[in-house]
Amino acid sequence: TKRYSITLLPGDGIGPEVISVAKNVLKLAGSLEGIEFSFQEMPMGGAALDLTGVPLPEETLSTAQRADAVLLGAIGGYKWDKKEKHLKPETGLLQLREGLKVFANLRPATVLPQLVDSSTLKKDVAEGVDLMVVRELTGGIYFGKPRGFGTNEKGEDIGFNTEVYSTHEIDRIARVAFEIARKRRGQLCSVDKANVLEASMLWRKRVTAIASEYPDVELSHMYVDNAAMQLVRYPKQFDTIVTNNIFGDILSDEASMITGSIGMLPSASLGESGPGLFEPIHGSAPDIAGQDKANPLATILSAAMLLKYGLGEANAANRIENAVLDTLNRGFRTGDIYSTGNKLVGCKEMGEEVLKSV
Amino acid sequence: TKRYSITLLPGDGIGPEVISVAKNVLKLAGSLEGIEFSFQEMPMGGAALDLTGVPLPEETLSTAQRADAVLLGAIGGYKWDKKEKHLKPETGLLQLREGLKVFANLRPATVLPQLVDSSTLKKDVAEGVDLMVVRELTGGIYFGKPRGFGTNEKGEDIGFNTEVYSTHEIDRIARVAFEIARKRRGQLCSVDKANVLEASMLWRKRVTAIASEYPDVELSHMYVDNAAMQLVRYPKQFDTIVTNNIFGDILSDEASMITGSIGMLPSASLGESGPGLFEPIHGSAPDIAGQDKANPLATILSAAMLLKYGLGEANAANRIENAVLDTLNRGFRTGDIYSTGNKLVGCKEMGEEVLKSV
Ligand SMILES: CC(C)[C@H](C(=O)O)[C@@H](O)C(=O)O
Ligand SMILES: CC(C)[C@H](C(=O)O)[C@@H](O)C(=O)O
Repeated sequence: TKRYSITLLPGDGIGPEVISVAKNVLKLAGSLEGIEFSFQEMPMGGAALDLTGVPLPEETLSTAQRADAVLLGAIGGYKWDKKEKHLKPETGLLQLREGLKVFANLRPATVLPQLVDSSTLKKDVAEGVDLMVVRELTGGIYFGKPRGFGTNEKGEDIGFNTEVYSTHEIDRIARVAFEIARKRRGQLCSVDKANVLEASMLWRKRVTAIASEYPDVELSHMYVDNAAMQLVRYPKQFDTIVTNNIFGDILSDEASMITGSIGMLPSASLGESGPGLFEPIHGSAPDIAGQDKANPLATILSAAMLLKYGLGEANAANRIENAVLDTLNRGFRTGDIYSTGNKLVGCKEMGEEVLKSV
Repeated sequence: TKRYSITLLPGDGIGPEVISVAKNVLKLAGSLEGIEFSFQEMPMGGAALDLTGVPLPEETLSTAQRADAVLLGAIGGYKWDKKEKHLKPETGLLQLREGLKVFANLRPATVLPQLVDSSTLKKDVAEGVDLMVVRELTGGIYFGKPRGFGTNEKGEDIGFNTEVYSTHEIDRIARVAFEIARKRRGQLCSVDKANVLEASMLWRKRVTAIASEYPDVELSHMYVDNAAMQLVRYPKQFDTIVTNNIFGDILSDEASMITGSIGMLPSASLGESGPGLFEPIHGSAPDIAGQDKANPLATILSAAMLLKYGLGEANAANRIENAVLDTLNRGFRTGDIYSTGNKLVGCKEMGEEVLKSV
């Protein structure tokens, strides 16, 4: 038996519900492949704030750092929105990414044939969309210094941040993206604003340089404003997209909404070594928390990414992915992806149906 | 007779074609309202580079500064893509915005009933979309200092830019946006990334403060990643959006593509005083340049914005807007907005048809 230790961070809102379901699926898929998990559940986000006064307690971070992989539910909620910056649930998430050094954020956006009608895009535009956004996650304007508040030469108050990338940071995220594109359809589109920003000029130069290590991957470049348009106009043109932290934040959310089913979309955040961080891309949805209405499939698919990208356990990952497809084929739907003719179920029942298909 | 002096900047690609058509429409609409124009045509962008070695010659800028309004076609093209930064056509455009101090960029995105099928969004999602993006245009990361290239403490090359806003810059763009929202449906959504960036925290604080001057306008706040999603999910929720330079660049392009007819969309850039800058939001489309295929309606509608926002000549502006609608109702379409049953025309013929309707 192989053994892995997994840190679970249920977080806020619907986080605990979807994590509890995904944990059961992970357990079963593992056991069928001779894998045993030990789980440590730790507080994070608003839940940690209420409990300990900070959004990422030291013990949560150190436990996560020692784990083989980390599965996160969701964080945040109205309750903590007015907190000062260093006490926001979001700050805890940024500290976790930094603390785990997970610089590569993988966000697939796939339109499943079963759910093509959920998209607001016309069927012929949405069907077949299958793209991956590789977002740089521990650099750029999110972490750049100097940052803060001050006054300018005219004595006016200012707020400022620094967008900065080093060759090292660009090279390593580019390599991750080229590796992924190579295993997909061999096309990588690097998104920047190199017609205006120096940080983007260096980005484009380094991505172009790294391309020579991957002659089998076709590299193109696109400005971020154009990319935001092209995702709406013709999303099927994209295979793998690589971009910086803030552009990746915006474009990956746009891409996920194009699928029409953000309750289905997982993500993986990986470092050079050490545990990866896996989480659904949806938020904590405080309005439906505790009502057994949440769609657990994004978290279940995040558990599949955990197995595949985090632990290298492709067989167990495939079991989960197939179980999700099978459950959809059997007609089970939570409210967010429901359409007439299907069976409306809650979070728990959806989990039980997936377990049957694992 | 009222007299106005207009600087025309045809620029590159399809720019000269659409400007020549729009000029005729402007002339006629003006003369019918007792307005006479004097036009000065000046080189700008790649055309200026070829002629004078710089993308914005001093004479072009000083002529524009002395005019009552500036109408720009489009700039850029493959030919100048490899130029160094200070010789790019885009740099000329940024210098023009800075030189005219046009800090407020108004980008309407409207789905006309006649063209609802052009959108890639489902009909019920696209129809009735009528929003205005107010983008801050002379601040933020586009112009912030320090910027450039250097090395970090580890000796790695870096590229960096500064996102910075002052209270003064935020207050004045907020006021423009509140004024516009007041004349529209009274709803203003301010888009930022205040959960991460200090520049956005100040933005949110100041926009909230300015709101007290506009009790009749309903202010909401949205994070930029969510806004990129919501534009795809349910664009009709938006009336007026106000945001910074880079987020406005991305979101206004996304919004324009949601209408499906970017060949139709105008823009206006306004300062505290001095001439405004009016231009279609589409690019120079070098692939169809000189072929009489371009859609001149975006530039014609930019001329209408010039009359309305630049010169305060609402009657002449309405004449042009109505003429465009009438021409569409009579079934004339350029290739980019063509659908069966309509009459396919080129750039010039479209111009002639609009003239008939003015
Ligand atoms: C919550 C927020 C800090 C975070 C981000 O901006 O990275 C979120 O939007 C995301 O994309 O994971
Ligand atoms: C050409 C480029 C510099 C410009 C910008 O980024 O502002 C363009 O994309 C626009 O939106 O007008």
